[in-house]
Amino acid sequence: MSIDPGSTLGVIRSRKPLVHNITNYVVMNETANAILALGALPVMAHAKDEVREMVGLAGALVLNIGTLSEDWVEAMLLAGTAANERKIHVVLDPVGAGATEYRTNTAKRILDVVDVAVLRGNAGEVATLVGVEAEVRGVESVGGGGGDPAELARGAARTLGVVASVTGPIDHISDGERTKAVANGHELLAAITGTGCMSTALTGCFLAGKDDPFEAAVEALVAFGVAGEDAADGAKGPGSFHVALYDALAALDPTSPTGRAKVS
Amino acid sequence: MSIDPGSTLGVIRSRKPLVHNITNYVVMNETANAILALGALPVMAHAKDEVREMVGLAGALVLNIGTLSEDWVEAMLLAGTAANERKIHVVLDPVGAGATEYRTNTAKRILDVVDVAVLRGNAGEVATLVGVEAEVRGVESVGGGGGDPAELARGAARTLGVVASVTGPIDHISDGERTKAVANGHELLAAITGTGCMSTALTGCFLAGKDDPFEAAVEALVAFGVAGEDAADGAKGPGSFHVALYDALAALDPTSPTGRAKVS
Amino acid sequence: MSIDPGSTLGVIRSRKPLVHNITNYVVMNETANAILALGALPVMAHAKDEVREMVGLAGALVLNIGTLSEDWVEAMLLAGTAANERKIHVVLDPVGAGATEYRTNTAKRILDVVDVAVLRGNAGEVATLVGVEAEVRGVESVGGGGGDPAELARGAARTLGVVASVTGPIDHISDGERTKAVANGHELLAAITGTGCMSTALTGCFLAGKDDPFEAAVEALVAFGVAGEDAADGAKGPGSFHVALYDALAALDPTSPTGRAKVS
Repeated sequence: MSIDPGSTLGVIRSRKPLVHNITNYVVMNETANAILALGALPVMAHAKDEVREMVGLAGALVLNIGTLSEDWVEAMLLAGTAANERKIHVVLDPVGAGATEYRTNTAKRILDVVDVAVLRGNAGEVATLVGVEAEVRGVESVGGGGGDPAELARGAARTLGVVASVTGPIDHISDGERTKAVANGHELLAAITGTGCMSTALTGCFLAGKDDPFEAAVEALVAFGVAGEDAADGAKGPGSFHVALYDALAALDPTSPTGRAKVS
Repeated sequence: MSIDPGSTLGVIRSRKPLVHNITNYVVMNETANAILALGALPVMAHAKDEVREMVGLAGALVLNIGTLSEDWVEAMLLAGTAANERKIHVVLDPVGAGATEYRTNTAKRILDVVDVAVLRGNAGEVATLVGVEAEVRGVESVGGGGGDPAELARGAARTLGVVASVTGPIDHISDGERTKAVANGHELLAAITGTGCMSTALTGCFLAGKDDPFEAAVEALVAFGVAGEDAADGAKGPGSFHVALYDALAALDPTSPTGRAKVS
Repeated sequence: MSIDPGSTLGVIRSRKPLVHNITNYVVMNETANAILALGALPVMAHAKDEVREMVGLAGALVLNIGTLSEDWVEAMLLAGTAANERKIHVVLDPVGAGATEYRTNTAKRILDVVDVAVLRGNAGEVATLVGVEAEVRGVESVGGGGGDPAELARGAARTLGVVASVTGPIDHISDGERTKAVANGHELLAAITGTGCMSTALTGCFLAGKDDPFEAAVEALVAFGVAGEDAADGAKGPGSFHVALYDALAALDPTSPTGRAKVS
C-alpha cells in the first residue's frame, strides 16, 4: 500500500459508505455537508436507543466531544464499543481537551473504553492527552503543544495505541512507527470554526475507504488540504472561503489529490 | 381550489405565519433560514414546558425526527396533540425511518398519537412506514422504496390517513384520492444535507397559507423545486448552490412559481 | 473614554479573548463564526460539569435562551454566577421572551440570579421584561414594544439594573443615564435568522475588549452594523448576504468603524 488519496477517494465515491457521527452541535451541518461533498453518506445519531444499531450500518464512526454532556458521552461509549465488536474503525476528536477537566477526562475515558483507530486533534489537545504541558484556550487552536509536533504525534501514537493525527499549519501523523508530515492546506482554514472537526469527519470517510488507518489519516488530510487550497483561490474572506470549501471538496478529482500531495 | 403556489406564496408573505419547528440539530439554521426566505416566521422550540403554548401561536407545526432522543419525542407528542386540539396542521418528516428500529417506531408512534396532515419523506422512509421492504441507509436518500412511487404515495395516504408527500427526482403527492407528480427541482438538491428537511419546513409554511393539505403539499414542492432550479443556475458546486438557494427562495415571485410548475 | 469601536476592535484582535457562549442550537455555528471573524475566540460549552471552569478562561460570557431546556438554564445560572464571582461581564439575549411564559420566566430568573452587564434584545422582548405590553410572535422581531424605543431602553436599564441594548432598524442603548442611538446596519440583517444573536455574541466580544459595558454595547452594534452595510453591497439576497457578512466582519478595519459610526 501507499499514500494515494485520489485512489481512496475513488473507492469512497463508488461505495458511498455511511459515516456515523456523534458530534457537536456547532458543526453538525458543516461536517455532514463536507462528508456529502466528498462523496460519502453522513448520519448524525446520538440516542442511546439507536447508536448501536446505526453504527452497524456504517463504514466508520466519528466521535467528537465539542459540546459534550453526559448522555452524549454514554452514547459515544456505546457506539464505540459496538463499532469495535464489528471491526468498524473509530476516529476521535478530543475537542477542547485541556481546556476543562471534563473534556480531558472524557477524552481519556473514551480512549480507555474504545479502541480508537485515529485520534485527530490539534497539538494542544493531543499534548494534554499524553500529559505534556500545553496551551489550550477553549476549542480553537491557539498554539502548539510545545516541542516538536512530529515527536508529539509519534509519542502519542505509542502511548495511546492510536494513529495520532496532529493538525496545524503542518500536519503530523504517526502510528508510532511510520510518521508523515502533510503540508497541504491554507491559513483560511483557521478562520472558520469547525475545520478541525471537518478534517476528523473526512478522516472517518477515508477510514471507510481504506483499511490502513495510518494511510487513511494521511490521505484525508491531503484531500482536505487540497480542497482548502482550491477554496482559498478567489475567496474574499472566511465566509466565501467556507462556501467554496464544499464546492472544492465536491470537485476533487480522484486523479488530482495524489499528484498535489505535499507529504514528507 | 386549484394548484397555485404563487397565490399561496402571496398569502404567506402577507400573513407572515409563525411556523413552529421541533426538528433536528443538523438543519435548524438551514430550515429557519428557508422559512424566513420564503416569507414566514420560523421558531424552534422543544422544551416540554413551552411547546403547547408556542404551537398555539403558530400557523403550522413541523415535526422532524432527524436527531431524536426521548425528551424531544415527548415534546413532539405534546406539541402535536396541542396542534390537533387547535386545528393547526402538522407535517411530519420521518428522517431515517427504516434505518433503525428507534426511528421507525418513533415515526409510527407520532402517526398513532398525532393527527398528521402531511407525511413528507423519501421513498425508503415512507415505504418503511407502510410495511414495504425498502433500502434505507442512514438519513440520505439512496434509492426508491421499490415499485411505483405514485402507488407508494397513494397507498401510504390510504393506510396512514395522511397526505403522503414522497420526494425524489420526481415527487409524488397523494391524499389517497388525488395524486400528483411534481417534476420541479434540480439534482444539486441531493448534494447538500437538509434539503428534504427544508421541503418539509416549506410544506409547513404552505399548510399555514392554505387549508387544503394536499394542495399545500404539492405547492410547497413546486415552490421549492423552482427555487432549486434558479439556485442551480450559476452554482459551482454544493456550497454555492446552498447559498443561492436562500437567495432564490427570497426572490420567488408570487406570479412565477405557478407558471413554472411541472405538475402532472 | 469615548465611543471608539475601531480602537476596541484593535484590542480584541490583539488579545483574542475567549468568549464563552451558552446559546441556542440554531445559531451556534453562525455566532462562533461571527466571533472568529471579528477576531476573538468562541467556545460553546453547556455541560454543568464544565461551565464554571470554562467561563474562568473567558473574557466574557454570552447567555442566549433561544432553544432552552431545563439543563441548559441551570448551566446558564451556574456559568453566570461563576462569571460574576470572577468579574467577567455577562450579556443576556432573552430570545422569545414574551412568546411563552417559560421564556419570559427564564429570562427573569437569569436576571434575578446573575448580574447581567448587558441585556441585548429586540423591543418586544425587552418590553416584556419590564412589564410593558408588546407584540412578540416567536423569536423573529416583528414590531416594536410600543412607544419610544429610546425611552424603553432607558427604562429597562433603570428597572433591571443593566445596560439595555434594544436593537431594531435603529438601535437604542442605555445604562439609565447615558442613552445612544445607532443607525448603522441594513435591512437584510432581518432577512436571515440569528443576526440578533450575532449582535449579542459580538457584544460579548466588545465586553471582553472594553471595561465600560455601555460603550462596549454601543461599539458592538456599530461594528456589526458597518459590517452589515458592507455585506449588503453586492448581495443578491439573504444567502449571499449571510456569506458576505463573515467576510465583512473579518475585513473590518480598526481605523474604519469609528469613522463610519452613526451614533447620536
